[in-house]
Amino acid sequence: MHPFTQKRAESVTALGETKLIAAIRHWLGATSPRAPFGIGDDCAVLPAILGRPLLTVDPVIYGEHFNATVPPRGVGEKLFKRNLSDIAAMGGRPRAAVVALALDPGVKLDWLEGFYRGLAAVSRQYGVPVVGGDVARHVGGIVATMTLVGEQVAPRTLTRNGARTRDWIFVTGVLGGSLASEHHWRFSPRLAEGAWLAGRAEVRAMLDLSDGLAKDLRALTPPGAEPALDVAALPRRRGCDLRATLGDGEDYELLFAVAGEVEPVEFIRAWRRKFSRTRLSCIGKFVRAGQRPTNALDLAEYQGFEHLR
Amino acid sequence: MHPFTQKRAESVTALGETKLIAAIRHWLGATSPRAPFGIGDDCAVLPAILGRPLLTVDPVIYGEHFNATVPPRGVGEKLFKRNLSDIAAMGGRPRAAVVALALDPGVKLDWLEGFYRGLAAVSRQYGVPVVGGDVARHVGGIVATMTLVGEQVAPRTLTRNGARTRDWIFVTGVLGGSLASEHHWRFSPRLAEGAWLAGRAEVRAMLDLSDGLAKDLRALTPPGAEPALDVAALPRRRGCDLRATLGDGEDYELLFAVAGEVEPVEFIRAWRRKFSRTRLSCIGKFVRAGQRPTNALDLAEYQGFEHLR
Repeated sequence: MHPFTQKRAESVTALGETKLIAAIRHWLGATSPRAPFGIGDDCAVLPAILGRPLLTVDPVIYGEHFNATVPPRGVGEKLFKRNLSDIAAMGGRPRAAVVALALDPGVKLDWLEGFYRGLAAVSRQYGVPVVGGDVARHVGGIVATMTLVGEQVAPRTLTRNGARTRDWIFVTGVLGGSLASEHHWRFSPRLAEGAWLAGRAEVRAMLDLSDGLAKDLRALTPPGAEPALDVAALPRRRGCDLRATLGDGEDYELLFAVAGEVEPVEFIRAWRRKFSRTRLSCIGKFVRAGQRPTNALDLAEYQGFEHLR
Repeated sequence: MHPFTQKRAESVTALGETKLIAAIRHWLGATSPRAPFGIGDDCAVLPAILGRPLLTVDPVIYGEHFNATVPPRGVGEKLFKRNLSDIAAMGGRPRAAVVALALDPGVKLDWLEGFYRGLAAVSRQYGVPVVGGDVARHVGGIVATMTLVGEQVAPRTLTRNGARTRDWIFVTGVLGGSLASEHHWRFSPRLAEGAWLAGRAEVRAMLDLSDGLAKDLRALTPPGAEPALDVAALPRRRGCDLRATLGDGEDYELLFAVAGEVEPVEFIRAWRRKFSRTRLSCIGKFVRAGQRPTNALDLAEYQGFEHLR
């Protein structure tokens, strides 16, 4: 659906602010608690957060993260899920979300309803209430920004730092072709997987893939090391060549390092008992810088997604 | 400063993503902790929140909340302070902020530096770290969205609900003319005042004025009541007529209800011992609907700021 209309009667302007906020509450339904625990006061009051609090923010922007080919529900779902994916990457549990929407007065009401119903669907699925937000005028664009509060559930927080030379490199799912396959808004954030991984001591570092493996893997690589990837082991999406597999963004899969002492086959066996439907691949290991075997991939030849190009 | 440039060398594009993020960390300086407690991981890990957590989000948008006449530092300061004002309105203490920036590739680096230095200045002044964020491309605009996590410090959370018929209506500071006087970005959020008010049992409900008294007062008015305002008591900014005082937005002052049994003069005396430099005015009281004295103001004749008009 094209988000904009020339017909005033079909646009958000027709409704006016008060009715628009009432409509948003209606679209969000039971996923939005009553004030002060939800929309309607200056702040939302959250339930107590017991573990260490986690905080993440990500937007979806018209022309960048979505266009008229993505259904409005899909835009709302994508916004929510890409934030959930960041919580998954730390092994956390999501607790509450707020959404700030900057939108052109000519945005279709139908589009907006779809967007909020998409948020509501994900909210219900993962049990994460939408507790507040803001709607403001922004001539010429749509920028929707979600902030998600989570909490640490495992005894520790799994971060991007902590991998060591000789650690195995694992990745969930398949990589590449996110845009063409519509994976970029249809994906499932790896929340259960992330929480399980954070609870296993042999997992040393983790992130979620957003800018392509070739780029994001750098953040996981320990100082003085480099990744030695096995080309044959890379889980490619159907139809993706190596460049797409390594360089396409928006995989929203988990990339993590497992202690070198562990037998990868054993780790994958334990994984399958828990997550029989989520593919897991051991794609290589970290070696000392300059000691990459000749048959391993040279990542320097590949690039991930560069923002602000 | 005009935020945009045609010269690539002066724009954010010239720097590229990695260097831009490094520059942002430099501009934020000590106000941005190291990952995972600050910028650099998928989420920020926050210190434990002891009181009930509060969450609020507000943007500043080019062409709506600022333009080229507001210095870039002022834009950053405004973004931070309007969120602090929401925490103040609940009597809370701000704990951590994240900032998502959607910006045109042609935004001047100088502008961006000023913006982040403005954020850093407010961060230092109020002791609230900027723990994370996002920067994304958004052709044709600038939308900066801050989410602020706070915590309740008083034994209770002061909300917009709770005022009763016969309660006094108080307001801090002076009202109106926020745009012309540059108050809209120069104001000080009433954090200390809000926390003090939340600690006093006779204060029953509170909000911060953002859309003008005439509009925002509705949210404080209890069911079956209406406000009876004393025109002479309204604290007007120099040069403001009644319409501007009641209808202009962005006052960022606290509006609250005090139990009718309390003597206003006594309350103001207690206030002055604590806040000798912040003006406080008792501007009227809530009366039963339909029983407004003839000399009291008829607010129906005045309007506040309507969003999405």
